Amino acid sequence: MKLRLINKKDNNDYKTVRVGNIEIGGEQLIMMAGPCAIESKEQMLASAKAVKEAGGHILRGGAFKPRTSPYSFQGLGEEGLEILKEVGEHYQLPVISEVMDPRDVEMISRYVDVIQIGTRNMQNFSLLKEAGRANKPILLKRGMAATIEDWLMAAEYIAAEGNQDIILCERGIRTFENYTRNTLDIAAVPIIKSLTYLPIIVDPSHGTGRRELVAPMAKAAIAAGVDGLMVEIHPSPCDALSDGPQSLELPEFADLMVETQELHKMIKNVHYLK
Amino acid sequence: MKLRLINKKDNNDYKTVRVGNIEIGGEQLIMMAGPCAIESKEQMLASAKAVKEAGGHILRGGAFKPRTSPYSFQGLGEEGLEILKEVGEHYQLPVISEVMDPRDVEMISRYVDVIQIGTRNMQNFSLLKEAGRANKPILLKRGMAATIEDWLMAAEYIAAEGNQDIILCERGIRTFENYTRNTLDIAAVPIIKSLTYLPIIVDPSHGTGRRELVAPMAKAAIAAGVDGLMVEIHPSPCDALSDGPQSLELPEFADLMVETQELHKMIKNVHYLK
Amino acid sequence: MKLRLINKKDNNDYKTVRVGNIEIGGEQLIMMAGPCAIESKEQMLASAKAVKEAGGHILRGGAFKPRTSPYSFQGLGEEGLEILKEVGEHYQLPVISEVMDPRDVEMISRYVDVIQIGTRNMQNFSLLKEAGRANKPILLKRGMAATIEDWLMAAEYIAAEGNQDIILCERGIRTFENYTRNTLDIAAVPIIKSLTYLPIIVDPSHGTGRRELVAPMAKAAIAAGVDGLMVEIHPSPCDALSDGPQSLELPEFADLMVETQELHKMIKNVHYLK
Amino acid sequence: MKLRLINKKDNNDYKTVRVGNIEIGGEQLIMMAGPCAIESKEQMLASAKAVKEAGGHILRGGAFKPRTSPYSFQGLGEEGLEILKEVGEHYQLPVISEVMDPRDVEMISRYVDVIQIGTRNMQNFSLLKEAGRANKPILLKRGMAATIEDWLMAAEYIAAEGNQDIILCERGIRTFENYTRNTLDIAAVPIIKSLTYLPIIVDPSHGTGRRELVAPMAKAAIAAGVDGLMVEIHPSPCDALSDGPQSLELPEFADLMVETQELHKMIKNVHYLK
Repeated sequence: MKLRLINKKDNNDYKTVRVGNIEIGGEQLIMMAGPCAIESKEQMLASAKAVKEAGGHILRGGAFKPRTSPYSFQGLGEEGLEILKEVGEHYQLPVISEVMDPRDVEMISRYVDVIQIGTRNMQNFSLLKEAGRANKPILLKRGMAATIEDWLMAAEYIAAEGNQDIILCERGIRTFENYTRNTLDIAAVPIIKSLTYLPIIVDPSHGTGRRELVAPMAKAAIAAGVDGLMVEIHPSPCDALSDGPQSLELPEFADLMVETQELHKMIKNVHYLK
Repeated sequence: MKLRLINKKDNNDYKTVRVGNIEIGGEQLIMMAGPCAIESKEQMLASAKAVKEAGGHILRGGAFKPRTSPYSFQGLGEEGLEILKEVGEHYQLPVISEVMDPRDVEMISRYVDVIQIGTRNMQNFSLLKEAGRANKPILLKRGMAATIEDWLMAAEYIAAEGNQDIILCERGIRTFENYTRNTLDIAAVPIIKSLTYLPIIVDPSHGTGRRELVAPMAKAAIAAGVDGLMVEIHPSPCDALSDGPQSLELPEFADLMVETQELHKMIKNVHYLK
Repeated sequence: MKLRLINKKDNNDYKTVRVGNIEIGGEQLIMMAGPCAIESKEQMLASAKAVKEAGGHILRGGAFKPRTSPYSFQGLGEEGLEILKEVGEHYQLPVISEVMDPRDVEMISRYVDVIQIGTRNMQNFSLLKEAGRANKPILLKRGMAATIEDWLMAAEYIAAEGNQDIILCERGIRTFENYTRNTLDIAAVPIIKSLTYLPIIVDPSHGTGRRELVAPMAKAAIAAGVDGLMVEIHPSPCDALSDGPQSLELPEFADLMVETQELHKMIKNVHYLK
Repeated sequence: MKLRLINKKDNNDYKTVRVGNIEIGGEQLIMMAGPCAIESKEQMLASAKAVKEAGGHILRGGAFKPRTSPYSFQGLGEEGLEILKEVGEHYQLPVISEVMDPRDVEMISRYVDVIQIGTRNMQNFSLLKEAGRANKPILLKRGMAATIEDWLMAAEYIAAEGNQDIILCERGIRTFENYTRNTLDIAAVPIIKSLTYLPIIVDPSHGTGRRELVAPMAKAAIAAGVDGLMVEIHPSPCDALSDGPQSLELPEFADLMVETQELHKMIKNVHYLK
């Protein structure tokens, strides 16, 4: 694997990515949460309130949705980004949203604090290059059939254009197992930590596709050394226009925040567990 | 699977896609061949001559190359397309090349007769939508982790924008087997034939990653009912800037043409083998 | 891959496995057919008659069934083998059946002409060793998660005990694709032909799990150079105690015989297609 | 999934499996450790001493080794079991070893406290049935291509014969990712906990194939709620006859014991993390 820019130079070589007052890859476990798709201002206000009150750090919400079918809800587009930005500002939460088109990178940059590149676009090299020229941090999800090497090389594309504010996100790979939507590859966490200085987070919502597995997999990721988590929440998962079965209800998210922060704190306090 | 536009209406519902004088999905087995990457005019002239003399139908050549590493040869870009167009016209061969960026669809349309969307972009929905607005046929490769359903839904994206001149291309999926670069899913041929009226071709070069397997897998695809093949050839595979180990030498391609056309003809002449 | 006994010594090094008057790996395409499970004498008589009349070569039928659930029909055991032997003799068809237990190898040898080792037991090394000491040919199915290398090494286990009458059988591998029961890896045919001198057959019934895909995949395997096929047939697939959806009806098998023999003959008659 | 015997009846339905004074599935995190293969009495004494001194609970060592190649070291057989038993008794450690042949179940039962069924034999139904008639607890590893459902059904085979002292062991599944030997499916832990009352342990050694990933994945499994771990250790991994690259050195194991017990204790003390 020939990494030139994002490779780890020595054992203590860790980069933090700054988003507002938040540092990803630092001492804190960063929690990103919000609905899969931005559906309305009310839905986002309720979600953001839950994120803020529970102590979450970043609000997520999809405005451009990569849906398997062209006949599924495709997201509210720029209108959704306006809602996201407004709600994020109201609750003083930085926001993250996905970009699917290289032509939208600049526009989306005006609304969000972190730009997400999704699993289906991990090797959309035009998009990676535009992201490399953006002045915002990039969250790069692993492709569902991408090896660790493919993934790091995709990050290297972004870095090669001048942007090293990259956060990697493991979100599960496709395997024969069909009980879960994807197989969450937790081993990616320590592997990434050994190969690159970039921070890594885990998305247990897409990684499992099942609400009841979000908490155990979030805790597993923390124990494996992850820098943060991204989880889907919804005021009313049953009515969600996308990904309802894997979205936590808002009180479940509050519980998850307590659990994950406590576990992270305990581990940090025992030097040999870090 | 909720296909609305590209689903097969009855057993005799087959669409042909016309490219110049050629019909894909009709009586003939269509052969697309050429180098992975356009490297020079000389290389393309030699390749095109070999394609033409052997009776091939369409000349392929990549000008924009989706490479895993940003430090690998990325293709000659528009300059490569100029070479491709010129060489294609010289040998009276329609040409096909890959588009990776929605912003390039219109420009590439001026140079090529068929626009290819590669495996890494099969769910690049912005690109699919632009391709749906192009006035050229689209060759849509299967994503390396895409189910048959994902793939047909991606084709439906193109169709939904108004372009039903779509050719599907099976090129192998990612599995645990590592003797081959990918596992070529030949069963996709009859499955696709039963679910949609669109034509399907197979790419045994990427599907196996090994020169010696191209001919047997090409023949397997024909026996399974494929409408055409796409193979990589190179005047000097050892010097190829991309995909040398899976590229046929030019005389090997001439042999492959004889074999595949003969097999296809024999099968067609026996009504119950069709 | 360090094969010592079953590796191919030169390009013309092919072994044939003799079963009665039949040679597997020789000039003929060998057809093995019969029901997944032996259910009754009537069922076997009807099946065997169909195999014989259509020109099939070997009768299959499972007496010991490896079922996922302990509560599914487990096969008739030795009683089933008695039926199989009697029916085979009546129709002058050699018979094949699966062994699952090393203690049964000798007993089964008294009833069958070929002993099958199934996909779940491909790395059951005790069973492989017993098979290596049997005086019957062994059909070794590929494990559903076995690489080509694993598979050949399993054959080497049999050979190392003194039995080189081994027939390999590709029957599909497990992948993320769920339209088919398994992904039939047709490329295994030419790969096996290049690495070992042993004959190889393909099982399109298990390889796809869908009746309508058996014929196209059988033909694909022939074009790729296979030495034979194993297909599941049943007088009444809907009533089958096992694998009904992938079993051909008896008249469908008669059609398949005509198609496959014709295709094989045509290919053999064109020297450069062989 | 139609489980009849091992399904969970309600949320508090957990079974513990008793091995000597040890309870698997109870309050303690059970550590099983030892070399992949029993090579000599000296090697086992050194390993057992390390296990005992570090506070490990069960000593492992393979006497019958399922090796891909017949020419690799196959284990010491019954002589190895004698060593294992003697060394286990010397250090007062219960012992576990793998059985590969149904004919060996009774013999192995005389030497070990837990009988292991390995990944390659998960659907060796003859072996499962014999194990079901043994009067020892069975550790059932997940097949490398087995779904959760296949795996639980295999356990049901054992239970159906009368033995419900079954410990499940997740050890990684085969995927396209090749940085690790297998992809360790940590989500299997909470899934198994929700579907069956049987205890589950994780084998991070085979699950990753890399020494440096054993500790992080062990911790991930604990956070996900596992009941125990099985790890490979060796007095001199470089000289190991099997699986050296994934074996911990003895001092590394001592560190792992401290880390894992501490993490488990911390989690147990916070009721909402359990």
